Amino acid sequence: MTPTPVSHADLVSASAAEVRAAIRSGSYAGHTAGLAAGKLQCNLAILPERSALDFLRFCLRNPKPCPIVGVGDSGDPSLPTLGHDIDIRTDVSKYRVFRNGTLAEEITDITDVWQNDFVTVALGCSFTFENALLRSGIPVRHIETGKNVPMYRSDIALEPAGQFSGKMVVTMRPIPEAQVAEARAISGRFPQAHGAPIAAGDPAQIGISDLSQPDWGDAVDINPGEVPVYWACGVTPQNVLLDAGLPICITHSPGHMLIADVAEDAETTILKSN
Amino acid sequence: MTPTPVSHADLVSASAAEVRAAIRSGSYAGHTAGLAAGKLQCNLAILPERSALDFLRFCLRNPKPCPIVGVGDSGDPSLPTLGHDIDIRTDVSKYRVFRNGTLAEEITDITDVWQNDFVTVALGCSFTFENALLRSGIPVRHIETGKNVPMYRSDIALEPAGQFSGKMVVTMRPIPEAQVAEARAISGRFPQAHGAPIAAGDPAQIGISDLSQPDWGDAVDINPGEVPVYWACGVTPQNVLLDAGLPICITHSPGHMLIADVAEDAETTILKSN
Repeated sequence: MTPTPVSHADLVSASAAEVRAAIRSGSYAGHTAGLAAGKLQCNLAILPERSALDFLRFCLRNPKPCPIVGVGDSGDPSLPTLGHDIDIRTDVSKYRVFRNGTLAEEITDITDVWQNDFVTVALGCSFTFENALLRSGIPVRHIETGKNVPMYRSDIALEPAGQFSGKMVVTMRPIPEAQVAEARAISGRFPQAHGAPIAAGDPAQIGISDLSQPDWGDAVDINPGEVPVYWACGVTPQNVLLDAGLPICITHSPGHMLIADVAEDAETTILKSN
Repeated sequence: MTPTPVSHADLVSASAAEVRAAIRSGSYAGHTAGLAAGKLQCNLAILPERSALDFLRFCLRNPKPCPIVGVGDSGDPSLPTLGHDIDIRTDVSKYRVFRNGTLAEEITDITDVWQNDFVTVALGCSFTFENALLRSGIPVRHIETGKNVPMYRSDIALEPAGQFSGKMVVTMRPIPEAQVAEARAISGRFPQAHGAPIAAGDPAQIGISDLSQPDWGDAVDINPGEVPVYWACGVTPQNVLLDAGLPICITHSPGHMLIADVAEDAETTILKSN
């Protein structure tokens, strides 16, 4: 039986569990920005257990780009501390499967690819602090203009762990000069979502030569009186995983996040499972 | 050559590296409260690699009692993200070695016990938020009266991971009723040091029957107008490790913490190692 398709608009006021159910049933396969308002959305990394200890060490040593918000048991597709009914094989609307460091396929269900040794790591995402900026009247240009946030390879070296290393990927948002301090304070309250900016101003200081040429996403205008402000980006761990050339690893597709039952402004990202 | 002993008073204005050097040389074997002011002090857990993935999962699922501030590579006694010259085998003033869930010895150097598969996990400690409370004029009774903080087994179930599970241990500090909200806000700024309180008021709500009978540490007076306030405690992971009955694991001795080069109010606990 083919599921009845639902639209993004249909799900804007849905709960996290309802969005996950629509995705799981095949009714929805779109992006998750703006869905299940107020709930934590997560970047996703799934990898074999033999690489999981080093990957957790890598994330713990690089908490700004890689803030861990949940970890599954080996081989277990549930994530009870993020949501009571999550099945990570079906509850994300689009996945990327990488084999030996190359994108092998982009699919909407990983049940057939799941391995008994897989460990799921959920990482915080910038939606959390962007929502907080917007609530405080700080403009977010790429949202205003319907674009994807511009992302850049910086020259900031990451702390290595085992086979995982590389440079930090950053996002850029132009912020009116008078609001930069407030933007810093607001985002700094969300260490589980990249925290405070890692730099502001001249892109050359972090090894970016041309803001009009992002490595991913779309260039945005920087208006007079605005300062480019840089945050650590969740594409960092995806790149690092890719460079490590694991036999297999899986991530979400950009914009297609895991939606948790946890409030995005909760003190910790842990639901009591019992 | 016997090292020249130095006193606690000699080290109060020393740097973290100087305190560690005094400990390493055998000149100092006392407690570390009040030393290297402003620097992060850490609870310590050292365990074999085969249990490390589950222990990291356990800590990540229980971030209030077990806030990870640093993790070493397997077999590597350095912790470059916490301090540039740390040797965890010698830089803590007193260690507890547990074998099969029993305290086997308390020693000042673990070089002879070190194993090539050991993983070091450093966890945040309450010194960080206590210092912040004191700076804001909020009294901390056990410090005022020269006692050890009272600690209690609560009935709050921890999120399990592999062989690690149990109940949360909490500390209690009596706070004047008018300052409870401020104490909550101040400690909440330090998620790497147990964060905001987990409860306040009636001890029965978290399964504590008698505040005058702590399970560890010393009872303290609760004066009229004061509320008992409970924070997650770093003894929790030590208990959980003990209950897991690992063939071998090592912790610091209470009060004998690892002192890092990281500022205790830093946004992240990670020093750049390169």
